[in-house]
Amino acid sequence: MATITIDTVGKYEDQNVTISGWLTHKRSSGRIHFLVLRDGTGTMQATLIQGETDEQTLKVYTELTQESSLTVTGTIRKDKRAPGGYEILVSGIEVLQIAEDYPIAPKEHGVGFLMDHRHLWLRSPRQQAILRIRHAVVNAARKFFDDQGFTLLDAPIFTPSSCEGTTTLFETEYFGDRKAFLSQSGQLYMEAGAMAFGKVYCYGPTFRAEKSKTRRHLTEFWMIEPEIAFADLETVMKLAEALMVAIVEGVIKTRQHELELLGRDIKMFEKIQPPFYIISYDEALQILKDAGESFPWGEDFGGGHETIISNHFDKPVLIHRYPAQTKAFYMKNDPHRPEVALCVDMLAPEGYGEIIGGGQREDDPAILKEKIRKADLSAESFDWYLDLRRYGSVPHAGFGLGIERAVAWLCGLEHVRESIPFPRLMDRLYP
Amino acid sequence: MATITIDTVGKYEDQNVTISGWLTHKRSSGRIHFLVLRDGTGTMQATLIQGETDEQTLKVYTELTQESSLTVTGTIRKDKRAPGGYEILVSGIEVLQIAEDYPIAPKEHGVGFLMDHRHLWLRSPRQQAILRIRHAVVNAARKFFDDQGFTLLDAPIFTPSSCEGTTTLFETEYFGDRKAFLSQSGQLYMEAGAMAFGKVYCYGPTFRAEKSKTRRHLTEFWMIEPEIAFADLETVMKLAEALMVAIVEGVIKTRQHELELLGRDIKMFEKIQPPFYIISYDEALQILKDAGESFPWGEDFGGGHETIISNHFDKPVLIHRYPAQTKAFYMKNDPHRPEVALCVDMLAPEGYGEIIGGGQREDDPAILKEKIRKADLSAESFDWYLDLRRYGSVPHAGFGLGIERAVAWLCGLEHVRESIPFPRLMDRLYP
Repeated sequence: MATITIDTVGKYEDQNVTISGWLTHKRSSGRIHFLVLRDGTGTMQATLIQGETDEQTLKVYTELTQESSLTVTGTIRKDKRAPGGYEILVSGIEVLQIAEDYPIAPKEHGVGFLMDHRHLWLRSPRQQAILRIRHAVVNAARKFFDDQGFTLLDAPIFTPSSCEGTTTLFETEYFGDRKAFLSQSGQLYMEAGAMAFGKVYCYGPTFRAEKSKTRRHLTEFWMIEPEIAFADLETVMKLAEALMVAIVEGVIKTRQHELELLGRDIKMFEKIQPPFYIISYDEALQILKDAGESFPWGEDFGGGHETIISNHFDKPVLIHRYPAQTKAFYMKNDPHRPEVALCVDMLAPEGYGEIIGGGQREDDPAILKEKIRKADLSAESFDWYLDLRRYGSVPHAGFGLGIERAVAWLCGLEHVRESIPFPRLMDRLYP
Repeated sequence: MATITIDTVGKYEDQNVTISGWLTHKRSSGRIHFLVLRDGTGTMQATLIQGETDEQTLKVYTELTQESSLTVTGTIRKDKRAPGGYEILVSGIEVLQIAEDYPIAPKEHGVGFLMDHRHLWLRSPRQQAILRIRHAVVNAARKFFDDQGFTLLDAPIFTPSSCEGTTTLFETEYFGDRKAFLSQSGQLYMEAGAMAFGKVYCYGPTFRAEKSKTRRHLTEFWMIEPEIAFADLETVMKLAEALMVAIVEGVIKTRQHELELLGRDIKMFEKIQPPFYIISYDEALQILKDAGESFPWGEDFGGGHETIISNHFDKPVLIHRYPAQTKAFYMKNDPHRPEVALCVDMLAPEGYGEIIGGGQREDDPAILKEKIRKADLSAESFDWYLDLRRYGSVPHAGFGLGIERAVAWLCGLEHVRESIPFPRLMDRLYP
């Protein structure tokens, strides 16, 4: 007798098998009893019939509670009415454990309650769909870079210095009186990698101690960050577009069922094809003005502004050349217009806002040194970074894609907290 | 005129092209001048001939220093004597930057010096070979799990509690007076995932503040950790074996050139086929005794012991059933022999020691609760973890593979510090 998983059930029609899993729910209709089993590969209906199933097994059935673990033995039957097209006619049930009273009922729970029970909440079909889509996003992105000859370089998490502003750093004691800072981005290290390998990327967690309680902020979030030598702003704008197309294609190809479960419109995703919209910061400002939002030139957009701009387009939009003063020290200024940086943000549609940020890096050692000084950063900590401009400096560019924000858009989530297995927010460190 | 990369040079024979890169070195032989160019995809020889190349280009040649960045124009010619089989006959050189005096010369440098210049050291052929093999290891491992239906679940880094002992924790202030600990392993979270998805894995950085200055220790290291529901020790021993076979196959298939550059014996790797050696802790003790190492039953092996045992075998060896007292609280004891745990370590050959550790997890809520109490861990912090045994507990098992140790073995490294792009050790936080 074969021990099988639910995803392979179609191969075992009319055969006697065993399946192990958990009870999601049960119901009775006259003398027929149904239990729905999940095993991580799928869910399926198991059927017991009074008068046909033996008394002992029927007794076990009555004792089963939600999320009890069990092994079911029986015959696989085709049944159009059953979800998935097959059911198992039960001949025996072996109980592994009768679960205690399960805290998550089909009724509505508050977000705080569900987050406190994230380790159990993961068992729900909706959360499983989201996290399987996340897996598909990661796979599509990695495949995209691998296929184009990028080398994966895992960036360090402990760093001696900050790269995205010193006010949002997590720090830890590092053997004695030294401090280590948790990485805010792998970019600076990817720049060193690009000078060695030409094209590199990292995928890993990054950390920002931002006191923001918005639907777009996590204190711990994962980024995929490519960096390319001999590349300019145009190169990475094209690359960012191609990456998002590859990610959307990968997800609709492998996770259509999950997108449908989440109520997403596959047709809308099929339209995510090049060319994306490309506008300048100045043009974005005009969109805000037309929407009645007064906004002074020279400031960065807030979440609300990004929502207005991104709602304006049915595909992702690339916004380039923000005021240099809004961007980090490592950005290169436009030689034709030094008040703007050679940078780009990509906003997802449907009001989701920024999912990618990047641009061309400053490659002149004297200018970079001056920028480090002006940003009030430690010259000593960045000496290695300046070496990249002393020994064969070349034009180079890259970007970072925030995985959670991309997943939130693809899944149509209200808040990024559902896009990561165990979210960490200002007020959330458990479980 | 095509702008090409060195890896595609074979397609452009007798064509006029441009290639951008860095100068690794140059030499002259009579009236012929050679420069060797690297661009991240490979290295190739560029040739200038006095009397044929124009004077201006010959003058530029004389000014070029090691690691200067440049764009070379010329004709691709087949030449058996050239490394790679092709050279470029130079008609023009555009200098991007004449590099300052490059600190890493072909002469021997001390390890401290090279580690201080890790951002430049990455440009050396040996370091590139190692890190490309690392990439191949990661890809092979992820493909292995993806192909078998595992779901990738990125584990959190910030955790409210410890899982591998409280003495080696890095901690950070987390908004106000709370403390967050940096993850020592994603395992506990993968257990929650296994109860939801059946089979899961994570790949990410983990942190241990160990005051160990051995060749096997990093404070920040990456692990891939699978976890499976309805699985026992035997299941994960088989899985660990299959994973290592897949990794070795993936590396010799895609990175043979790099293995050869590192002086590794491909034939030895081709022998890494099932079955691996499987011995008990008690049998391992006998090997130590036979080698003249007196060792009391009940203690964990040190690095030196692992070296002796692993030198004893020409393939990886799995050692199972260590004394329970040497293992973490979450391990299940053998019901037939409660003084040993249902655990397994895999040691790599050639004296490399432990690369995998894992086993079957305690699934009884009462026993686990008692173990948490005995380990002096906070009951409150682990309440969520106990939930996994309250709501449908099932036998489950998993393991962690340390990527750096696997790479160190595959590459034949003296020390794990070369197996990761930017190593972090007790006394190393820069660059």
